[in-house]
Amino acid sequence: MDKLELIREISRATDTKIVLLVIDGLGGLPDLETGKTELEAANTPNLDALATKGICGLSEPISPGITPGSAPGHLALFGYDPVDCTMGRGVLEAVGIDLDLEMGDIAARGNFCTLDNSGLITDRRAGRIATEKCADLCELLDDMDIDGIRVIVKPVKEHRLVVVFRGDTLSEDITDSDPQQTGVAPENVEARTDAAEKTADVVNKFIKKAQKILAHHHPANMVLLRGFSKKPQLPTMKEIYKLKAVAIASYPMYRGLAKTVGMDVQNTGATIEDELTALRKCFTNYDFFFIHIKGTDSAGEDGDYNRKVAVLEYLDGLLPQLIELKPDVTVITGDHSTPATIMGHSWHPVPVVLYSQWCRPDGVSHFSESACILGGLGHLPATDIMPLAMANALKLNKFGA
Amino acid sequence: MDKLELIREISRATDTKIVLLVIDGLGGLPDLETGKTELEAANTPNLDALATKGICGLSEPISPGITPGSAPGHLALFGYDPVDCTMGRGVLEAVGIDLDLEMGDIAARGNFCTLDNSGLITDRRAGRIATEKCADLCELLDDMDIDGIRVIVKPVKEHRLVVVFRGDTLSEDITDSDPQQTGVAPENVEARTDAAEKTADVVNKFIKKAQKILAHHHPANMVLLRGFSKKPQLPTMKEIYKLKAVAIASYPMYRGLAKTVGMDVQNTGATIEDELTALRKCFTNYDFFFIHIKGTDSAGEDGDYNRKVAVLEYLDGLLPQLIELKPDVTVITGDHSTPATIMGHSWHPVPVVLYSQWCRPDGVSHFSESACILGGLGHLPATDIMPLAMANALKLNKFGA
Repeated sequence: MDKLELIREISRATDTKIVLLVIDGLGGLPDLETGKTELEAANTPNLDALATKGICGLSEPISPGITPGSAPGHLALFGYDPVDCTMGRGVLEAVGIDLDLEMGDIAARGNFCTLDNSGLITDRRAGRIATEKCADLCELLDDMDIDGIRVIVKPVKEHRLVVVFRGDTLSEDITDSDPQQTGVAPENVEARTDAAEKTADVVNKFIKKAQKILAHHHPANMVLLRGFSKKPQLPTMKEIYKLKAVAIASYPMYRGLAKTVGMDVQNTGATIEDELTALRKCFTNYDFFFIHIKGTDSAGEDGDYNRKVAVLEYLDGLLPQLIELKPDVTVITGDHSTPATIMGHSWHPVPVVLYSQWCRPDGVSHFSESACILGGLGHLPATDIMPLAMANALKLNKFGA
Repeated sequence: MDKLELIREISRATDTKIVLLVIDGLGGLPDLETGKTELEAANTPNLDALATKGICGLSEPISPGITPGSAPGHLALFGYDPVDCTMGRGVLEAVGIDLDLEMGDIAARGNFCTLDNSGLITDRRAGRIATEKCADLCELLDDMDIDGIRVIVKPVKEHRLVVVFRGDTLSEDITDSDPQQTGVAPENVEARTDAAEKTADVVNKFIKKAQKILAHHHPANMVLLRGFSKKPQLPTMKEIYKLKAVAIASYPMYRGLAKTVGMDVQNTGATIEDELTALRKCFTNYDFFFIHIKGTDSAGEDGDYNRKVAVLEYLDGLLPQLIELKPDVTVITGDHSTPATIMGHSWHPVPVVLYSQWCRPDGVSHFSESACILGGLGHLPATDIMPLAMANALKLNKFGA
């Protein structure tokens, strides 16, 4: 029996409330001059107070050494095995723009690209056309009907788009049209199984039609598609945890990820204050709240150590607004580390603090990477955080007699 | 290859001796006033001396957040995967009264209950009749022969009983007669497979006969049966570890659990001193000794913080009697936490100390939850304790060349 199955068996609905605050890219690395990580440099009295009252540790998003993308990083925090529950590239791209996929939909990641007169690819990104241009072109291609299959085309950013094929008996077992190199022609999409013949045919017809429509839109005179995939059929958080769960996230990717595990989504503005306002607004209606903070990750990706420190301090100043709601369980952690010195996601484990009336406090009094090493949660897989939150909310029955 | 299979391959019989002292419900939570757990408040110089000489850690009985019952808690300490090796309710109840089940026996948990004149259940517990009354009624039902199947009926406590069906080709694939609600009639027991038809028939005949015998014993005028199950076929500790293992436990449940993994049972009186006397008596005859201390768990379940502290101090005072026997390996831990503040089993990890000539001591000098966080064993699954004990007893060969 896997862990989720076990939890599903012993979970129970209660009135207690759990807040999971995810500070994206929370973990950092020491600044070369000061020797302090972003979290160590930040003045965070409220996080430190929570660390003192609560129990701390270091979360391993996937396993030691593995740098997670946003999807596995978040699925692990929601308790799902991030290696088993993978998402295809097309689905991830759809999730990233919060595009609702239906069961059976096939989603593909697309690029606008440039073909020369002989039909060979000269630029896989069509000169990175502006996002507005991409949106205009997508509108030209959107909402076709091909042999009874609806084709939905939506812009992402610059040359990137999502194409969704909606209809009966579609299959994801088809090859990419994107050869992922220049100087060659786009590939014909081939079925990998007999059942996928119709899908391959529809996709090839769509590509041919798109090429005609785009003919006079050089440099974006063609589309390349890859990563055809279906939405994974994950059990919902309701099914596993018996939770009424809601996501509060200003970025579409995180709303999309939350929806794949069946969370509702609460409307929110873009700032942390907006998100806390949204939390207050829906606090009586749910018993699980996923709040996503993006600014730390963006600052880390930009290599902006000082901005990451500033976001952490700003968040810390707003934390009392969360605490005064008195959730039964508060968990604060990240989906992965994004050290400013690395300018990207990294494999380093992530500080985590859990507070509830029933936690067993440890000696940790600062919320930081170095202090959390000595925490009572030890090093724990990120997938253990939800079971611990559930236990502390007294939402799990005893296993076995 | 699973862990037990690996251990089975590399284990060897030697003269060295391992003592596993299980302090039931050992782990606690801080008292709200003092901030100290039961173990932190107790004056335990002998446990602290062992922690100083030995290596400490925190044991996770099942996995973080999961509260174990006694059966999975102990099976994990014996090295068996506690999620795979589950026991049906009937078997557990039989184990709980130390009733020896044979291979093929079907055990059921029973309730005496009250039926009204129209045959509907008015009280699933027959007014919680006295245990003596239960024993008298069980004697009326015990030792029937139904179509060549022997039916054994034994009292547990108050209205609870165990019914064992013994004979050839019995199946556990039958439904409960206990509808687990009042205002309805007991259910007919149904076979879930063809092979279970005979068993269902025998059980229904037994219930009908029992109803006739109990007719004039209102309020206990019927039995309800549930959790039909067979003893799990676990490999014995002899097979896996090549150990000659013995259990010393004053409570029947723990003797029963030890027997399911093939341990012998040494007679003992009720007190900790009695158990230590029993240990001395059999010390030359075995090389593995499981000693079970119940008082800590009972005090925790009663919410009696001070009594739990007192039991720990009392046990600590007797510890030299164990130490002077000079076992090669001494392990002291619990099967789960039972904090007095929670008044029940909990999910919190459990302190563990291991001492042998070959352990690598750490900096821990107190046997407590907070000190063990920093121990050299770290957070470890309870199933890793037996391999560590075996290694320290030099009872495991090298794996691979």
